[in-house]
Amino acid sequence: MTITTLEKLDARGRELVFTGARTTNSFADTPVTDEELRDIWELTRWTPTMANTQPLRVAFVRTPEGKERLLPHIAEGNYAKTQAAPATAILAVDNRWHDQIPTVFPIRPEMRDHFEADEAARSHAGHFSAGLQAGAFILSTRAAGLAAGPILGYDKDGVDKEFFPDGNWSTILVVNVGHPGENPWFDRLPRVPEDAALAWA
Amino acid sequence: MTITTLEKLDARGRELVFTGARTTNSFADTPVTDEELRDIWELTRWTPTMANTQPLRVAFVRTPEGKERLLPHIAEGNYAKTQAAPATAILAVDNRWHDQIPTVFPIRPEMRDHFEADEAARSHAGHFSAGLQAGAFILSTRAAGLAAGPILGYDKDGVDKEFFPDGNWSTILVVNVGHPGENPWFDRLPRVPEDAALAWA
Repeated sequence: MTITTLEKLDARGRELVFTGARTTNSFADTPVTDEELRDIWELTRWTPTMANTQPLRVAFVRTPEGKERLLPHIAEGNYAKTQAAPATAILAVDNRWHDQIPTVFPIRPEMRDHFEADEAARSHAGHFSAGLQAGAFILSTRAAGLAAGPILGYDKDGVDKEFFPDGNWSTILVVNVGHPGENPWFDRLPRVPEDAALAWA
Repeated sequence: MTITTLEKLDARGRELVFTGARTTNSFADTPVTDEELRDIWELTRWTPTMANTQPLRVAFVRTPEGKERLLPHIAEGNYAKTQAAPATAILAVDNRWHDQIPTVFPIRPEMRDHFEADEAARSHAGHFSAGLQAGAFILSTRAAGLAAGPILGYDKDGVDKEFFPDGNWSTILVVNVGHPGENPWFDRLPRVPEDAALAWA
């Protein structure tokens, strides 16, 4: 339901989603249910993308068999935490995201044909909007009461071949999901100084 | 401050940031202060990026002079709302984001040299993490009690030349910021069906 009166998120919400949440590097053996994983998606799927195209796809790996298929493709430094996490989300771009245009953007179904004909534009637009959704997915995980541990140290081709053998989904980020274990967070690192990050006109 | 006990974001928070907020297509003339714009950044700057590199930069355009410089580069369909918005954020990648590595990732300052030597890797990593941050920026705007209207219909080269003439920042997204005006939202469009968006292993 669309909200009609805006207001600031309260202090606890700001901490949970933005300022107090941390990338998690160890996981407790507390399980995560499929319902909790679906709740992450329930938040992410409403966040904006170019022309509502929603190119992000998610493969949730949470069985021992699934983990066994995933772990050989994870870099050494990310192995133990990925093994320990009760669930791992493989975030991917659907290389044929434009096939959904008649459904998700019915006011301009012909946009599908434009992106069918222009592979470079399709790849750029798909990766850009999926990146926005990936940013939202991390924050959605936190909002669902779970810890997120996004990692980029993995063999993309290996993950793609194992999980998306038809070539239609292309991995962009792997996110471990669960509850924090022992010593779950590194010390907080510095932020880019405001005068280097912001400009005013 | 790092939070140590996770919990779900409450129902109102979920609505404000994820499920009830909408991309805004008209703006009231209610002003937005620089303090409110800084508050958006205060939320975004803590969200995760690869090796804490934080490549996103933001130029906040909120003076009549700034708007006059921006508007000639905005596509016709986005012109009226960009003119009406009390502030417009130009989101950009810093093409020399790796120069910040010794500051933001002091445990591996030599990563700077790796990315200095490999322009393709630098561009890919910078755009990917800036995309995550751009997704977070939209949600931060909502969490700051403001309406966000992200647009991709603009002349990127024109915006870059006008606002970033030294070539160091490269625009990736323009986001109008303010308070909703009349008929601010289109009808909600369909979501990609769950069986097309999610996989389980």
